[in-house]
Amino acid sequence: MASTSGREISPFIAMEVLKAANLREQEGGEVFHMEVGQPGTSAPSKVLAAAKEALDNQQIGYTDALGIAPLREAIARHYKEFYGVTVPMERVVVTTGSSGGFLLSFLSAFEKGAGVVLAEPGYPAYRNILTSLDLVPVGLPCHAETNFQPTPELIDKLPDPVSGLLVASPSNPTGTMIKRDELAALIDYCAGRGLQFISDEIYHGITYDEDATTALELTDEAIVINSFSKYFSMTGWRLGWMIVPERLVCFIEKLAQNLFISPPALSQYAAIAAFECKDELEENVKNYARNRKILLEELPKLGLSRLAAADGAFYVYADVRDFTNDSVAFCKTMLAETGVAATPGLDFDPHRGNGYVRFSFAGSTASINGAIERLKDWPGIKKGSR
Amino acid sequence: MASTSGREISPFIAMEVLKAANLREQEGGEVFHMEVGQPGTSAPSKVLAAAKEALDNQQIGYTDALGIAPLREAIARHYKEFYGVTVPMERVVVTTGSSGGFLLSFLSAFEKGAGVVLAEPGYPAYRNILTSLDLVPVGLPCHAETNFQPTPELIDKLPDPVSGLLVASPSNPTGTMIKRDELAALIDYCAGRGLQFISDEIYHGITYDEDATTALELTDEAIVINSFSKYFSMTGWRLGWMIVPERLVCFIEKLAQNLFISPPALSQYAAIAAFECKDELEENVKNYARNRKILLEELPKLGLSRLAAADGAFYVYADVRDFTNDSVAFCKTMLAETGVAATPGLDFDPHRGNGYVRFSFAGSTASINGAIERLKDWPGIKKGSR
Repeated sequence: MASTSGREISPFIAMEVLKAANLREQEGGEVFHMEVGQPGTSAPSKVLAAAKEALDNQQIGYTDALGIAPLREAIARHYKEFYGVTVPMERVVVTTGSSGGFLLSFLSAFEKGAGVVLAEPGYPAYRNILTSLDLVPVGLPCHAETNFQPTPELIDKLPDPVSGLLVASPSNPTGTMIKRDELAALIDYCAGRGLQFISDEIYHGITYDEDATTALELTDEAIVINSFSKYFSMTGWRLGWMIVPERLVCFIEKLAQNLFISPPALSQYAAIAAFECKDELEENVKNYARNRKILLEELPKLGLSRLAAADGAFYVYADVRDFTNDSVAFCKTMLAETGVAATPGLDFDPHRGNGYVRFSFAGSTASINGAIERLKDWPGIKKGSR
Repeated sequence: MASTSGREISPFIAMEVLKAANLREQEGGEVFHMEVGQPGTSAPSKVLAAAKEALDNQQIGYTDALGIAPLREAIARHYKEFYGVTVPMERVVVTTGSSGGFLLSFLSAFEKGAGVVLAEPGYPAYRNILTSLDLVPVGLPCHAETNFQPTPELIDKLPDPVSGLLVASPSNPTGTMIKRDELAALIDYCAGRGLQFISDEIYHGITYDEDATTALELTDEAIVINSFSKYFSMTGWRLGWMIVPERLVCFIEKLAQNLFISPPALSQYAAIAAFECKDELEENVKNYARNRKILLEELPKLGLSRLAAADGAFYVYADVRDFTNDSVAFCKTMLAETGVAATPGLDFDPHRGNGYVRFSFAGSTASINGAIERLKDWPGIKKGSR
């Protein structure tokens, strides 16, 4: 009997933290959830209303594999309104979460065995999906000096040829962003060397100083991946989208028919209304901004002063090397002794993650304040505690 | 710039038929839809009510990658009630449609390059998903003599060693079923040769004479794939499930976390109620039975007398070799001249499908009657018309 396949998947340590945090809660312990990248808010009210209306009036059957036309049109309009970029609806692919977008983009853009460059630290599912599909994740060690983001110079130092580059701005886990001119340099670099450029833009809309630049402002040849999960606060609806180069549409449609049949229909009908909820969504961003301000002010006072530039998303990526060289044990002890749940950096960076911890501030301000109070008295982050 | 990958995906001809049918309808033409495997009914009323309740009371956030506990428990209970089989909820994996189940089962059970045996004719996405994942679909030509189903003798004749067998009973496109003793023989054959047995049971519940046997009555080592799409009439909700051997649970959980994060949450909350809707669902099956009876009585009178034994599902697979050796052209002409939309067999069988057509009877009885009326006068199926 065949046992598990040889396809390697690294463990999701965040899930272990979540389990331990939930167990603590079930046993009556207090937990300050800063381990999950999930908005504390539900979908905006117009989306909920649209879902109820669809339950009354639609059959909720299979849809076109690329998504229903009104939603594709609404997404195309969003690019005009949000970025001032014209995107024809024919290049819009509605997906089952950004997860579905990654599967479709990797399978459509790369031959098997191809190497795809990813920043380390980065979202762990990138490399695990690539590995599952017999593609090769090529980790690019990125440091605070380049805002934890790739640069042409860093990619140039890679020993082997690669086929693509995937960037995320704002990034998970660091929240750092790639400025417009830096993005242009990366896109030019890829265009000049035949690399497929993939831009993960799922945290667009959740930014604090400057707006994010979409790769589509600079090229039609990028694959852009986005989602209703973060800014639109619709994680469990499992709905995302891609904007793809025209040359890939046909193949992606066939892939999507076979791999997914169609994205969830009810989510599609409901999501059309998401673009009419700006006031409610901006309130969510204001809440993230409040939480962020507290963390950026208070964490340094506690001894956690080396923080990535959290310009977007809802994460603070903290250098904890003054206190530990084992972020997994650090997070475990922190949870046990203070109730603060955070994610060890090892999930995001298999090589240097042991010196980092990711704090999510997607939840309530009360829980952020509570966490800071508890950490004030915690000896784990007193200087010289290592 | 990378162009489309080398991963081959055969075209979905059914989608072309659907497009042509929809175009005809838009232009005011009459269409009798027999091309899609989609129930004409919506989800049962208690499911719709549960969805509304979830919209009011749940956050619709990410769930456990394997699905919410109450749904996994309800699925486990379903095996007890429906088949009399005990399945621990720990082996229940909720998936994003059966599509998600195929991805997870193929990736977890097979090393890359492994050969997986599939009956020809069969569901085209099987081979396209396998190919996408660098696995090798091994088509097993199955004829009317074995009910279009695999047998140990047929598999034994394959020239190269294989790693797994995927069967579907009832089958799409034929509706034929594998009897309990035949299923046992196939499972024994696989167990004795180290092949992973995968049982696609998504049409269970839609049977006309005998109930279907689940592979779980015979072994704990099979991967069983099922779905809320067909019997439960919930296609667009994109929700399915697998029952997997204990040895695969951990790896599948990690894969699911990375590939999907979680199945659609609203669909999960709603689907718990699906198991309380037997009366409504049995009414749907009665409708399919009525439609089936009409087709099995009337098609032979029209000259289409060689039909697969449609013991389950909602398809009649008709041998049309008396009239054509090009089922794609045949279906195109039939649509143009009669408004009857059906799927060329070539979608299901790349080698012999040109001699077959699949008629779906998942729709209304009125449309089935209308189709029969139109076909009565159609010269395309008059003897000697070829």
